[in-house]
Amino acid sequence: MQIDMNSDLGESFGNYHLGNDDVILPIITSANIACGFHAGDPLVMEQTVRLAVDSGTRLGAHPGLPDLVGFGRREMKISPREAYTAVLYQVGALAAFAQAAGTHLQHVKPHGALYNMASRDYVLAEAIAMAVKAVDPGLILYGLAGGELIHAAEKVRLRSASEVFADRRYMDDGSLMPRSQAGAVLADEAEATAQALRMARDGEVVTASGKVLKVKADTICIHGDTPKAIAFAQHIRQAFLDAGVQVTASGDFV
Amino acid sequence: MQIDMNSDLGESFGNYHLGNDDVILPIITSANIACGFHAGDPLVMEQTVRLAVDSGTRLGAHPGLPDLVGFGRREMKISPREAYTAVLYQVGALAAFAQAAGTHLQHVKPHGALYNMASRDYVLAEAIAMAVKAVDPGLILYGLAGGELIHAAEKVRLRSASEVFADRRYMDDGSLMPRSQAGAVLADEAEATAQALRMARDGEVVTASGKVLKVKADTICIHGDTPKAIAFAQHIRQAFLDAGVQVTASGDFV
Amino acid sequence: MQIDMNSDLGESFGNYHLGNDDVILPIITSANIACGFHAGDPLVMEQTVRLAVDSGTRLGAHPGLPDLVGFGRREMKISPREAYTAVLYQVGALAAFAQAAGTHLQHVKPHGALYNMASRDYVLAEAIAMAVKAVDPGLILYGLAGGELIHAAEKVRLRSASEVFADRRYMDDGSLMPRSQAGAVLADEAEATAQALRMARDGEVVTASGKVLKVKADTICIHGDTPKAIAFAQHIRQAFLDAGVQVTASGDFV
Amino acid sequence: MQIDMNSDLGESFGNYHLGNDDVILPIITSANIACGFHAGDPLVMEQTVRLAVDSGTRLGAHPGLPDLVGFGRREMKISPREAYTAVLYQVGALAAFAQAAGTHLQHVKPHGALYNMASRDYVLAEAIAMAVKAVDPGLILYGLAGGELIHAAEKVRLRSASEVFADRRYMDDGSLMPRSQAGAVLADEAEATAQALRMARDGEVVTASGKVLKVKADTICIHGDTPKAIAFAQHIRQAFLDAGVQVTASGDFV
Repeated sequence: MQIDMNSDLGESFGNYHLGNDDVILPIITSANIACGFHAGDPLVMEQTVRLAVDSGTRLGAHPGLPDLVGFGRREMKISPREAYTAVLYQVGALAAFAQAAGTHLQHVKPHGALYNMASRDYVLAEAIAMAVKAVDPGLILYGLAGGELIHAAEKVRLRSASEVFADRRYMDDGSLMPRSQAGAVLADEAEATAQALRMARDGEVVTASGKVLKVKADTICIHGDTPKAIAFAQHIRQAFLDAGVQVTASGDFV
Repeated sequence: MQIDMNSDLGESFGNYHLGNDDVILPIITSANIACGFHAGDPLVMEQTVRLAVDSGTRLGAHPGLPDLVGFGRREMKISPREAYTAVLYQVGALAAFAQAAGTHLQHVKPHGALYNMASRDYVLAEAIAMAVKAVDPGLILYGLAGGELIHAAEKVRLRSASEVFADRRYMDDGSLMPRSQAGAVLADEAEATAQALRMARDGEVVTASGKVLKVKADTICIHGDTPKAIAFAQHIRQAFLDAGVQVTASGDFV
Repeated sequence: MQIDMNSDLGESFGNYHLGNDDVILPIITSANIACGFHAGDPLVMEQTVRLAVDSGTRLGAHPGLPDLVGFGRREMKISPREAYTAVLYQVGALAAFAQAAGTHLQHVKPHGALYNMASRDYVLAEAIAMAVKAVDPGLILYGLAGGELIHAAEKVRLRSASEVFADRRYMDDGSLMPRSQAGAVLADEAEATAQALRMARDGEVVTASGKVLKVKADTICIHGDTPKAIAFAQHIRQAFLDAGVQVTASGDFV
Repeated sequence: MQIDMNSDLGESFGNYHLGNDDVILPIITSANIACGFHAGDPLVMEQTVRLAVDSGTRLGAHPGLPDLVGFGRREMKISPREAYTAVLYQVGALAAFAQAAGTHLQHVKPHGALYNMASRDYVLAEAIAMAVKAVDPGLILYGLAGGELIHAAEKVRLRSASEVFADRRYMDDGSLMPRSQAGAVLADEAEATAQALRMARDGEVVTASGKVLKVKADTICIHGDTPKAIAFAQHIRQAFLDAGVQVTASGDFV
């Protein structure tokens, strides 16, 4: 039993500082680094890659929609070819920083609205998977467990990591309950920890309707934006270890 | 005796079309492809790389200042580290498209104001050279013959291609007469052709003051934005061949 | 019987030239000028305002989504408050150029995907109408005849101009047949002219299913991007005059 | 004896929060609000205008260079016409938010590198002054005391406010010592307060060389980015009041 802990990093931009990258890095095993479309800029990318390398955390690209003011969170009707080229561009850019730091990328996790759209839309997901494969066929594609990104990775013969969420309520079809609905977020940390452990250890989750659903848990999404989030990240890491779940980078086992 | 003919391509953006890439590609030997900062976008980059590959023309990155509305032509006071990371980012992005097309980049030529500033400013030039080397130490850095980009390439042990201009008047220090001055551009095609041939064959150019200056001519800058420019490109290519100057990509000889 | 002829202008950007503004201006009565989000930049806006003033054409703002690379044509999930502030910003910016030229704006026509989304979505439409009214309650809001922008203008007590299309096929609900469907565009100029005349003179249009639908035709959308489009613009203007339909700016009659 | 206290506000952008606008607003008399080029976005502009109106602080536009990633702090070689149209655009955009809030702008203060360049370059300064006047001839132009923005305002017959700095060392020509030089910033609060009071009360400042220079002090630049800066703002406001210097908006007296 093993799980990867991933977190979004390098989301500062120019004069704007965001996140606590240096604090969250030692807790997680895989860093998703913004690539300049929804967040990040070349200086920030260089610095984040260096921080991650120093901390021994694996590097991943976190490509987003070209929407800086919306932080890549607003869905846009982009074509599959636009998605393909946008991902190719951003992963290529980050790969250069990895190479300059004497290392290489482990994975790619689409960001925000791009992730959400691709989790539902197979055609978009396949375009993204093709772009990832074109940069480096050894890369691992991160996607919502059971979602179209995972299906697309299988189809194009790319390794994938099925992602789960500790604090989000699941629907019977394996999708996440939209944040707009009441109860979408598990506010209780004990409940969130229990859900994470059950997913990691038993490969199942209890949905909003009470149904027990099979779920593959290769990697878990970790937030580091608040002191509370950081404390929870440390707590859940310890809970994994205590339960005999090894916390290790996805590249070691998927 | 040999010379490379290079031209700026892939300068369209979104709904905006610029240039005659398909027409100029068969005439030149090296394509400088815009990388999204001063021109170009991911869709355009993919298409331009494919066009260049189909035509057998070598690929180069053409990184610029982050100034789309100014087309990268307005000088900006950027720090060496900003230059380093901006070049790393853009070259990495284009390299991904080259790789997706089954090939790789031959060279990097900074664009517009970045080229001009780096031709005069060694510190900036070295930052750019370091970025190019970090992506791929086999890349060739293009720069103004006798300028700081060439010196920086030597210093960091990167191959370089000294660039000359057929239709620009040279000053005694090897710099180009600013376009704001009368006589900066050789309007007469015969004169421009003669200047190009003398540079390629004899390694010298007559400056504005009448002085004969040594100049290294590895590559010549070719425009393709107007029918007249295209006709001149064909004319000068033929003139090189007639004079026994081989027209071939820089990667074959520098 | 009278009709306004409107066209999108000022869509150049930086080094990129688009359109034939000087040619189309004398044919139309109202110019929709891009405001820098999907197209246009401050220099282009100033120049376009001046051209329109010189030609005696009325000025309107043409605010779009913040998506330059997509030319504002890709639908984005923006909130009503984002729409409100984006329109306020863009109309305010263009109004300053109008004022500097000694005149003022007549109207506002949302662009591309913003227009399409607001034609279907009342909440979005009302946010846009409120923004227009906040800048100047005397402004006229252009929207698809029968669509939500027109309803929103009525609701917030703003004058509106119902827009029709000569060359687009109408559905039974008054919407335009999506361009993705065969037959969406009337390729035959005589048919398009006949449709335009019937809308302007009789206030009705024959839909794709053959049904005769009532349609209010205050203004007609005119293209000027190709020589053929310009010829058609002149042709349809003459056809209106020949049929006794006065061609005049919306501000004169709505 | 009276002085205006101005501060830069509305510098957040999208998901990025910057500054303590609600805390600094009650201390100052004039707010310089970012307009979307170097910082700020339409949502932020609307919110900042509302905050300032609620606090009774006068509104000003704070137009900057089109360089979001550089926060408008990197000098760019822009033409006077580019400066004119960029200022017209940004002031117009902010004016729309002021109007929507039932008020109007009091002043315009160029930001960062645009301010610095225009303080030295009369042609650029006059272009900016013309733009401000074109939007509203009643606006007040803020500029470095003794600098070219003030001269340009006089030339085009626009009211101006001469700005001084409490914590910056002055050179004999009235310019500020560049931050790159040692001693450029007065770290001692007592010294900074004394300099501010002497400028406000006696219209003079002691330069780096010890010379006493005449300086007009209509408005003083206040920072609010740190708790220490906010404490100093309160301290200096009280020091003005204690010394019989009235703290009031520039629009009341220039």
